[in-house]
Amino acid sequence: MNDFGKIFRFTTFGESHGKAIGVVVDGVPAGLDIDEDFIQSEMDRRRPGKNKFATQRNEADKVEILSGVFEGKSTGTPIAMVIFNTNQKSRDYNNIKDVFRPGHADFTYWNKYGIRDYRGGGRSSARETAARVAVGAIAKLILKQLNITILSGVIEIGGIRGESVDFEFAKKSEIFALDKNKEEIWKEEIIKAKKEHDSLGGVVKLKIQNLPIGLGEPIYYKLDNILASAMMSINATKGIYIGNKDAHKLKGSQNNDEIRNDGFKTNNAGGILGGISDGEEIEMEIYFKPTPSIFKSQQTIDTHDNEIDFKLEGRHDPLVAIRGSVVTESMAAVVIADMLLLNMTRTMDNIKKLYS
Amino acid sequence: MNDFGKIFRFTTFGESHGKAIGVVVDGVPAGLDIDEDFIQSEMDRRRPGKNKFATQRNEADKVEILSGVFEGKSTGTPIAMVIFNTNQKSRDYNNIKDVFRPGHADFTYWNKYGIRDYRGGGRSSARETAARVAVGAIAKLILKQLNITILSGVIEIGGIRGESVDFEFAKKSEIFALDKNKEEIWKEEIIKAKKEHDSLGGVVKLKIQNLPIGLGEPIYYKLDNILASAMMSINATKGIYIGNKDAHKLKGSQNNDEIRNDGFKTNNAGGILGGISDGEEIEMEIYFKPTPSIFKSQQTIDTHDNEIDFKLEGRHDPLVAIRGSVVTESMAAVVIADMLLLNMTRTMDNIKKLYS
Amino acid sequence: MNDFGKIFRFTTFGESHGKAIGVVVDGVPAGLDIDEDFIQSEMDRRRPGKNKFATQRNEADKVEILSGVFEGKSTGTPIAMVIFNTNQKSRDYNNIKDVFRPGHADFTYWNKYGIRDYRGGGRSSARETAARVAVGAIAKLILKQLNITILSGVIEIGGIRGESVDFEFAKKSEIFALDKNKEEIWKEEIIKAKKEHDSLGGVVKLKIQNLPIGLGEPIYYKLDNILASAMMSINATKGIYIGNKDAHKLKGSQNNDEIRNDGFKTNNAGGILGGISDGEEIEMEIYFKPTPSIFKSQQTIDTHDNEIDFKLEGRHDPLVAIRGSVVTESMAAVVIADMLLLNMTRTMDNIKKLYS
Amino acid sequence: MNDFGKIFRFTTFGESHGKAIGVVVDGVPAGLDIDEDFIQSEMDRRRPGKNKFATQRNEADKVEILSGVFEGKSTGTPIAMVIFNTNQKSRDYNNIKDVFRPGHADFTYWNKYGIRDYRGGGRSSARETAARVAVGAIAKLILKQLNITILSGVIEIGGIRGESVDFEFAKKSEIFALDKNKEEIWKEEIIKAKKEHDSLGGVVKLKIQNLPIGLGEPIYYKLDNILASAMMSINATKGIYIGNKDAHKLKGSQNNDEIRNDGFKTNNAGGILGGISDGEEIEMEIYFKPTPSIFKSQQTIDTHDNEIDFKLEGRHDPLVAIRGSVVTESMAAVVIADMLLLNMTRTMDNIKKLYS
Repeated sequence: MNDFGKIFRFTTFGESHGKAIGVVVDGVPAGLDIDEDFIQSEMDRRRPGKNKFATQRNEADKVEILSGVFEGKSTGTPIAMVIFNTNQKSRDYNNIKDVFRPGHADFTYWNKYGIRDYRGGGRSSARETAARVAVGAIAKLILKQLNITILSGVIEIGGIRGESVDFEFAKKSEIFALDKNKEEIWKEEIIKAKKEHDSLGGVVKLKIQNLPIGLGEPIYYKLDNILASAMMSINATKGIYIGNKDAHKLKGSQNNDEIRNDGFKTNNAGGILGGISDGEEIEMEIYFKPTPSIFKSQQTIDTHDNEIDFKLEGRHDPLVAIRGSVVTESMAAVVIADMLLLNMTRTMDNIKKLYS
Repeated sequence: MNDFGKIFRFTTFGESHGKAIGVVVDGVPAGLDIDEDFIQSEMDRRRPGKNKFATQRNEADKVEILSGVFEGKSTGTPIAMVIFNTNQKSRDYNNIKDVFRPGHADFTYWNKYGIRDYRGGGRSSARETAARVAVGAIAKLILKQLNITILSGVIEIGGIRGESVDFEFAKKSEIFALDKNKEEIWKEEIIKAKKEHDSLGGVVKLKIQNLPIGLGEPIYYKLDNILASAMMSINATKGIYIGNKDAHKLKGSQNNDEIRNDGFKTNNAGGILGGISDGEEIEMEIYFKPTPSIFKSQQTIDTHDNEIDFKLEGRHDPLVAIRGSVVTESMAAVVIADMLLLNMTRTMDNIKKLYS
Repeated sequence: MNDFGKIFRFTTFGESHGKAIGVVVDGVPAGLDIDEDFIQSEMDRRRPGKNKFATQRNEADKVEILSGVFEGKSTGTPIAMVIFNTNQKSRDYNNIKDVFRPGHADFTYWNKYGIRDYRGGGRSSARETAARVAVGAIAKLILKQLNITILSGVIEIGGIRGESVDFEFAKKSEIFALDKNKEEIWKEEIIKAKKEHDSLGGVVKLKIQNLPIGLGEPIYYKLDNILASAMMSINATKGIYIGNKDAHKLKGSQNNDEIRNDGFKTNNAGGILGGISDGEEIEMEIYFKPTPSIFKSQQTIDTHDNEIDFKLEGRHDPLVAIRGSVVTESMAAVVIADMLLLNMTRTMDNIKKLYS
Repeated sequence: MNDFGKIFRFTTFGESHGKAIGVVVDGVPAGLDIDEDFIQSEMDRRRPGKNKFATQRNEADKVEILSGVFEGKSTGTPIAMVIFNTNQKSRDYNNIKDVFRPGHADFTYWNKYGIRDYRGGGRSSARETAARVAVGAIAKLILKQLNITILSGVIEIGGIRGESVDFEFAKKSEIFALDKNKEEIWKEEIIKAKKEHDSLGGVVKLKIQNLPIGLGEPIYYKLDNILASAMMSINATKGIYIGNKDAHKLKGSQNNDEIRNDGFKTNNAGGILGGISDGEEIEMEIYFKPTPSIFKSQQTIDTHDNEIDFKLEGRHDPLVAIRGSVVTESMAAVVIADMLLLNMTRTMDNIKKLYS
């Protein structure tokens, strides 16, 4: 089930070492200026091979739009975007052909489907998230029209938590660090882990600003449960938390956000009440496990049930949370785009406004 | 969007103080023995009014099956279940008619829909979860046929974390306590909070045992992201974590679960790899905020934009995580039932097996 | 799969001789006046037992609203409606317990599900269409706000085609006859068929007036293919045709509707071009097979593979097209309601209009 | 809404004169041999430019598979197929840039979306159906494994109805003629219409053989209403009929198919009872309007509300029913594939068979 969304709905396809990956986006409203440079700039933010804190696999990640755009504008028909894989190096992966890499999806894909594209993770590779960034960029173009912004950054690496939060700093940081005082320490941790042929986990903080009140469709398509679903579909995520991450430790009198005419006095709720945006900033955290691809010897089995010691070779991110940070923004953007469209249909007042 | 699931799909309806709440379950396989006593016993586990650790509002929560069952068996047609509200006491709620209770969905429902059933939360009331328990019971009846079991309990209350985990103990505990050594302390905390007219948050631990390998439909209907969506749709949940809740602090070499022929050596993954069950137990935590209904004076506004001080009266759970624990099981059960059915369609081998 | 629609979406449930039938409607916009008298009046139009041209089975078909309506208005939450079965007479049906009635769904339900509620057709009974009329009435209440009207009537009975079309006459006719000159002949045909213990087929004509341009979501949720799906889901329908029913016999120069500034010169298209409403009236025909329930001896088999001669007893419509006519309106109404809502989300202009 | 299906689900994209058209197919069971030659042979059956009875626009319609296939087999991940447009000749279409061609979707797309890719119909072009044939070929590969076959042909052209039906003859006929005695007459009619710069309508007959009993998901995803939806989504279709096309003229005693142990004595039902396949052949007719593209002067308006006389130039099929015949098979195949998969989940027996 490779689709996501109800009205703003997309389907991704492609394997890490196949011909191409891509996405078809349905439900993009007509008349949207499709800024291809912006789309590419988003791709570049996630693109591997840029610095020593990411995998050295170098992919141009050039997006080609095949449909749905005419004279620079969306036409209301599906927008298909393809990214051809240019740096497959299939030979790198022959050693893992029959091996179930620990922490990877090899074992489960094989057991579920009885067949597996073993070249670099195939469909389960984080490379799939490039397609999410492409569709996320389309969603962001819609959000821009309403001055909605999405920000993200890394707030914890290897168990070391940042204390201050500066999304502007994160934008320029090579590791999207939210705490400028921790950036160097975090970088050192990453370099150290690389040297040890190991990897690190991390935490991403996400913020959505200037959201209208009213987004979210209770009871099972709430803004929070769909954001949760969106984030937890990203490779290597293991948890999420919305609003004050200590809410479950607080008392009601501490956690409730009191209300004044100019808004809420606090934002422990993280901008969502009853599954619906309340006008405050959406705030959430996303927890990434350490990259499963490490270069130490590990015990595993192969497809013939042999127990073996296995040592991975190749090029991998020491910390997926960094590039994952961009992907969380993309997933947030597609959720918000969908919620914006759904919410338009919820009152007779709106119907009368548009059909009179 | 009050429906959930793809094949095993249900739609809930009803307000806390309307005539009834209920659920229509579509896609229940034909030939399932519908054990009404079991369904009612599940309802009773979640039912309010049983002890001093839950709201004193007393609802019989008697489930009436209207369709889809014939001579004790499911027929493959929709099973409609209704629970008539017997203890509405609408007068209790007149004082909140125009008030936006802090921490509640009043403010957002009003702003989204322009109208609100103000009687006790209406649709946004946790009473809706009774319908989830009814459908969850149907799902559990399917799971029983495959010896799949779901367990839950409370592992943290008011910031006090349990150390040992005993699901059998939790079953018998009035507060579904997982740690028998903490039960008394937790109870005292709850009583104390009640006396202070306040409420507490908590953490639920959930376990699914004996799951076949292969459940979960990548990339956007993974077992983990749909479990996340299911849990985060429950009232008062703010976060979830799957597997070892410190995974993001670990190194890859610590977190990867090595594989032997008799299974995984550890289960940091919590039973899911690449969005697909790996044969180990599913383990997850669900974080509940403190009940927003407290009986202290709070600042808020009303529907006429008056800033007021407001003090709630009535009957409410001091800790939603307790009865919420049962609801997490129900939501887990419906997710697993759906995933079981979807997975049947994924290989040509299965097709040939059933159509030869 | 007992649900229909994308945004205005409903799920029906219930068997003809179970406790109740009903429907849950999700996505009804908030703020709609719910006129219960109108809903009941629609039920009464379809209700059996009114005259000798319909089954003598007498059902009150009283609709009870369980949720989603507050102080007379829709709240945006699901509207559940239940119709309790009051005239089940289960004993009538013991003779068909093991028999597959020719022309009925008995054989296929049994083979598909391995179990069958044999009391009067169970789920496959046309009684299910009462739930459609209830939800159709909700949809019509929305359409009324935009002055959209839906009309229907019978244009052919037993192979005798009407020549003139008068929807106002049909409203008052006991058999919803569109041709006043044929009404008596048709009635005689029906009486004759009844006397012969036989049944008749017929054709319904449907018209939708005052539709805005732009409804319909190409390529697979076009206005025409979803109308087709809606109509063909009604019991006993075998065909549909949109627009001039001889279009396939015409030349392009005859069939194309030329365009002037005040609209189309003709309406061979039946109001739909490229799957989207063009502002002309929607016109379509729906073809109903003769009621399969006849009182003549027929050859069939039973569940034990015995070949038998079988003669039905009971009460049945000699012509389902008559009451089916009301159901076609209901299905048209739900399709249009859904298309109205979907179409609101299709342009950036609309987004800006509602979120500025 | 450019997607179709529930489990076997596809999304098409692309405009007639954009870079490419294509389709992403999700839910293809793993382990299916993907015979690319067969896929291409299906494309060739629909391909234009082959003879004088079709448009002279010559497209190679070469399908390129981008994903989801590994070492010749489906892997269970989405199969993306792209057909690059090689013969766009955009200049041909400058004359229609601002004109609403009668009988086309120009008027409605413009009014719905406020923007239109005017090059040759854009998204509303019948070129989109090439993508359907590609996905239909995948579906046929599944059906072949179960010996299910789908046949089609033309039974009526320009109002001249065939009398005999020979699907084997149709396969070899340039115009897919079902009646060998009518083939020459029909060809002459087509040539005559072409000479008159006009076009013709026609009727396609479709047959599905060797279907298991039990396919179809009542009440709103019945085999018949989804086949209807599928067919009516094809360009230029205006009607469909399932089974004996005179059923609505018959009496119940004539139309009911009596049952013996070796099957039904007749097949007026066209192989479907209660929305579920009954083991007999599925038979249906699909009614195509004449191609709207004619080369005679017609009255219309342009986007600036000017009333004009307009004469089309270019290359078009005189009769879309011919190539449309292939597309009806493709749509039938995707419906059956989806129904096969859905039906697997409908009984506890099947669940136990696959999970024991």
